[in-house]
Amino acid sequence: AGEQWLEDGAWPESSVGRLMEKPNAVFAPGTRIHEAVETLREAVKQTLITYLYVLDKHDRLVGVVAFRELLFANPNDTLAEVMLTSPFSLRADMDLIDAMHAVVTRHYPVYPVCDAEGRLIGVVRGSVLFEQQAFEISAQAGAMVGVEKEERAATPWLRSLKFRHPWLQLNLFTAFIAAATVGLFQDTVNRIVLLAIFIPVLSGQCSNTGCQSLAVTLRGMTLGEVRSSQAGALMAKEALLGLVNGALTGVVAAIAMYVMATMQHHPQPWLLSLITWVAMTSSCAISGMAGAAVPLLLKRLGADPATASSIFLTTATDVVSMGLFLGLAAWLVM
Amino acid sequence: AGEQWLEDGAWPESSVGRLMEKPNAVFAPGTRIHEAVETLREAVKQTLITYLYVLDKHDRLVGVVAFRELLFANPNDTLAEVMLTSPFSLRADMDLIDAMHAVVTRHYPVYPVCDAEGRLIGVVRGSVLFEQQAFEISAQAGAMVGVEKEERAATPWLRSLKFRHPWLQLNLFTAFIAAATVGLFQDTVNRIVLLAIFIPVLSGQCSNTGCQSLAVTLRGMTLGEVRSSQAGALMAKEALLGLVNGALTGVVAAIAMYVMATMQHHPQPWLLSLITWVAMTSSCAISGMAGAAVPLLLKRLGADPATASSIFLTTATDVVSMGLFLGLAAWLVM
Repeated sequence: AGEQWLEDGAWPESSVGRLMEKPNAVFAPGTRIHEAVETLREAVKQTLITYLYVLDKHDRLVGVVAFRELLFANPNDTLAEVMLTSPFSLRADMDLIDAMHAVVTRHYPVYPVCDAEGRLIGVVRGSVLFEQQAFEISAQAGAMVGVEKEERAATPWLRSLKFRHPWLQLNLFTAFIAAATVGLFQDTVNRIVLLAIFIPVLSGQCSNTGCQSLAVTLRGMTLGEVRSSQAGALMAKEALLGLVNGALTGVVAAIAMYVMATMQHHPQPWLLSLITWVAMTSSCAISGMAGAAVPLLLKRLGADPATASSIFLTTATDVVSMGLFLGLAAWLVM
Repeated sequence: AGEQWLEDGAWPESSVGRLMEKPNAVFAPGTRIHEAVETLREAVKQTLITYLYVLDKHDRLVGVVAFRELLFANPNDTLAEVMLTSPFSLRADMDLIDAMHAVVTRHYPVYPVCDAEGRLIGVVRGSVLFEQQAFEISAQAGAMVGVEKEERAATPWLRSLKFRHPWLQLNLFTAFIAAATVGLFQDTVNRIVLLAIFIPVLSGQCSNTGCQSLAVTLRGMTLGEVRSSQAGALMAKEALLGLVNGALTGVVAAIAMYVMATMQHHPQPWLLSLITWVAMTSSCAISGMAGAAVPLLLKRLGADPATASSIFLTTATDVVSMGLFLGLAAWLVM
């Protein structure tokens, strides 16, 4: 077991190799079925054996046999005659996420693991792979806001602090970028304080629209439904969705702006209302598109597509939405 | 198959019953092994049979036999002698999420499904259950911001619009609640426009702190690590984390406020700086606690703990953080 552990440790982190166990029922293709059964009769009492692996003389995996096949075959047949040839196998250096995609519809109890030359070097239990999958996928919502995969509900608070704090400092830095946008238009806000009231509305709306798009894109990537070739189409769809959602919620926001501006005796309630609608519609469209673009871009840059994605996204949506809203107001309102 | 489909449809949505197939190797306990093998010899060529199910005369599941057992047993033994007694089974009316928790470490290829009286009424493939699990867990990040479980990357845009739009209208409504908080202190913002610049910083920071806590709590609930008895401890931990994270990022924000207030020749830069720090620290503590409280509360109310959780959370954090920040400023600053 110690030796096995060392071998596993040599494989890259979150690769299939790290989860391997030793294969315990390995035979040559010429083995007769009654011989294999006799060999295994004692072994099955000690360990859980699910499949027999058939290797050629170079240790390459050439077949897999289930006990069901042994039961109904002629005892004098060879394993080569009953084995499933060209069996499905995983590569030890395969990324766990890729392995999960490969096995999700197979769901065998145990998978053989081979090296680059097709030699059997281990097996990995389906349950181990899937526990890992549940673990990985469930980490995604946290990763978006800067929670490490390793953090669990039971993680001690000081360790959680160490995990989360750097991301919050990053978030603060990006929030300053958004604040700088408001700062640029300080004079305008000074004149029309009503704008300050609408900033959280616009920012919250764009951020939620963008996060919907982000979540759908990330999920599609996780379930293997989104290929990078579809990036353009997906971004176009999310931009359209953002546009229509923004236009519809923008009507409500514009009405609210009109009512408040009128109540406060602002001389141009219609104009403020129109600016609100235009800013909401266009910045929701951009937020929707950005929600799809951020994870696709992170992946293209070689990063995890979920990590801090929501932090990057909200910065972008805040800057765009506030810039547009206050910029239009500064330009158009007297 | 038509009849089976009708039967499945009778079970509640997202219950195990909906995923059932017909069991195809069912025997009485007294069946001799050689009889069972002969019965199955033709059947295994037609369908994938993994286990033999042994039922008593009331159709109750009393044992499961794997082909491995048949192979090494005496052909004249009965199934009762080699079967695994009190086998693990799922209940047809079981919620899928509960079923997944029950099977995650078992990972059998097929699970027997029984009714309340223990009668075998179907089987469910592990792969079907796990595909469903990957599907459910990966929906969580989206559910938090109002994306339905059914929506995929390939969903037509008009259907996506129908799914997402109501949640965005809800988000807009909650954003108005946050805006009303700013509106309450309109005079203060009018006097000190610097406050308007810091509103997005504070709001973004609290929202991200709260979402970290929300994501960790939801993940713990999904992986079955968080029991409702631990709710108090979890909320206390998240409040502490929020407090310390808020205090540390608050120092940076307070320095920024001091610098800006000095640059704008505000007469009380120290006071504004202190208010920023106090507001950041205390509202991050409250946001952290709220992040754990929202999904636990949603679950206690019988709702899905993820659904729209981020929308509810950011409303709460916005109201608390802006109310505290502007309230302190209105109270203390000349």
